[in-house]
Amino acid sequence: MASTDEVLTLASVQEAHKLIKPFIHLTPVLTSSYINTLASTPQTAESLSQTQWSGHPPAKPVLRIHFKCENFQRIGAFKARGAFHAIERLKQSPDFDPARGVVTHSSGNHAQALSLAARESNIPAYIVMPTISNPSKVSATRGYGAQITFSGPTAPEREAAAQKIIDEKGAVLIPPYDHPHIIAGQGTAALELLSQVPRPLDAIITPCGGGGLLSGTALACSESKTKVFGAEPEFEGADDGKRGYYSGRRIESVKSLTIGDGLRTPVGRIPWGIIYERRLVDGMFSVTEGEIKQAMRLVFERLKVVVEPSAVVGLAVALFNEEFRRVVEREGGEEGWDLGVVFSGGNVDLGALGGLFGGE
Amino acid sequence: MASTDEVLTLASVQEAHKLIKPFIHLTPVLTSSYINTLASTPQTAESLSQTQWSGHPPAKPVLRIHFKCENFQRIGAFKARGAFHAIERLKQSPDFDPARGVVTHSSGNHAQALSLAARESNIPAYIVMPTISNPSKVSATRGYGAQITFSGPTAPEREAAAQKIIDEKGAVLIPPYDHPHIIAGQGTAALELLSQVPRPLDAIITPCGGGGLLSGTALACSESKTKVFGAEPEFEGADDGKRGYYSGRRIESVKSLTIGDGLRTPVGRIPWGIIYERRLVDGMFSVTEGEIKQAMRLVFERLKVVVEPSAVVGLAVALFNEEFRRVVEREGGEEGWDLGVVFSGGNVDLGALGGLFGGE
Repeated sequence: MASTDEVLTLASVQEAHKLIKPFIHLTPVLTSSYINTLASTPQTAESLSQTQWSGHPPAKPVLRIHFKCENFQRIGAFKARGAFHAIERLKQSPDFDPARGVVTHSSGNHAQALSLAARESNIPAYIVMPTISNPSKVSATRGYGAQITFSGPTAPEREAAAQKIIDEKGAVLIPPYDHPHIIAGQGTAALELLSQVPRPLDAIITPCGGGGLLSGTALACSESKTKVFGAEPEFEGADDGKRGYYSGRRIESVKSLTIGDGLRTPVGRIPWGIIYERRLVDGMFSVTEGEIKQAMRLVFERLKVVVEPSAVVGLAVALFNEEFRRVVEREGGEEGWDLGVVFSGGNVDLGALGGLFGGE
Repeated sequence: MASTDEVLTLASVQEAHKLIKPFIHLTPVLTSSYINTLASTPQTAESLSQTQWSGHPPAKPVLRIHFKCENFQRIGAFKARGAFHAIERLKQSPDFDPARGVVTHSSGNHAQALSLAARESNIPAYIVMPTISNPSKVSATRGYGAQITFSGPTAPEREAAAQKIIDEKGAVLIPPYDHPHIIAGQGTAALELLSQVPRPLDAIITPCGGGGLLSGTALACSESKTKVFGAEPEFEGADDGKRGYYSGRRIESVKSLTIGDGLRTPVGRIPWGIIYERRLVDGMFSVTEGEIKQAMRLVFERLKVVVEPSAVVGLAVALFNEEFRRVVEREGGEEGWDLGVVFSGGNVDLGALGGLFGGE
């Protein structure tokens, strides 16, 4: 596809926003004085992990956090933005025959997002899912009108199943993050966030899985002074983006069962170009599973909104990552930072939550 | 207190709103097309309980539900409204000496609400809690600056402990619902709801525990065509309001361990006067524990907001109570009803949720 070589800029995100505005929600931005106070309070030695605590006094950043609530987005996650943008761009292409449909291999939010976006344009959507997929995700995706094809669990098996549909139906593949239209679409959340907060944001932090949201956010901020950071779970190597960023080489495979299940994938090639090669992201940070759970608890109990574990890694960095907190302390000074934190989604079921928090 | 004999009207609620507006949040009103579709779909025989299913075809109401989100209110529940109103009215009284403080016996949302409202006026708050109270509730209440006194678990023990504080400190008792200023304050949620929905509401349904919220709502709607209904859990007799309403006699004692823990109290004397004697409430309905859990799950998974079990009994009635659904079908006709549902609060901890939903 020629389109994947498109050079993406702020204008790409702005144009994407014009196209998708009729289809998406302008999601709210929430704040919590309680969480701001907590984030601006030094963590005690006990609350810092052994590796972070090295005799320095804990950081004293001043943080005013602005939560962009993509958990309230259509299908419950920012993925609706990229999917609607990809579909609108396809419809503009003279070569595209809507009857042939679109296809993807995903069992998560992208599958639902693509199914919804395709349905609203009367385009068939074919979704390849591993047979071991959570039945509630299968039925949710089917609920958006998609045709599900089951495959084996490995990437080659899923790709082969998708290829078969491409060959047979002539369907167009819309991957979950490694595509310029998807990236430009995901960047629109940050574009909105910048305009929704009355003062300029010093920084935005987003979760990083395949890197679509992070790289789109970086494009959205590329002509402003707003810094952009990525957040990942560190469990079982899910911090591939961070490790790649600081070693200068993209890590191409990840096998982690972090509770941040949207973040178990390696950063894609095109996102990597934006995040690392073009230096549009200012830093990457990681957090532990326990820190993710603590952040989730805070969001549930204080903000009263439902978020999935992947969604809170940015908040967990702001609360618990001493490296990040030292950056804010140093660069923000007494004034501190206005920090945008993107809650990427809210698709978690109560049974799973029970499993995470039931023993407490 | 002479004030408890005040005749409450719509004007009482409007005046309360003017007084408390600077202190409370104007909470949002949410809708969900998914929940509307579900509520407007006949329930199958399998989903109806044995007692409800008596050979009639299931009701086919048309419902457009408007959720008033008091889970986003200060302290996480509507109780902030009544507490701020009671404090503002006290401050207007020439007899009141702020240094003497206020007192209540409550371990729930009212304790936190009164503590917050008192603190913001530099008034000491004394809260009597049973020694068996949930430690997280004790520390939350203490977090609002209250002085906690522990007592035995029974009502007489708690009342005796409160009386001791009244005698010693000269503190003024602010009960959780059986007081005209509390009732007028709680009615302001419905006042806002009526003005936030662009079309006139056909009805509003609220949870009913002590009856403060329900009777306040009834006052707020008393000069409009909007009907008012109360919702209760039926478990272990927590439907005392309904049983009293249809038998013509207030039930003065309840011992239920329903998961709707805010609704375990009998309806108070003053709320009863408004609900039943003045006929300002149009009907009472009850739901099972399973129906409450199903409604909670829907709110979490679809609206992505955190609600406590007590908060969703109104939605559970709209979804599952065949009697109520027949009323809507009959009175709403093809046009159906615009129904306001008050989510009373969102103070639930994740551990408790795990206990409720962890096995699923």
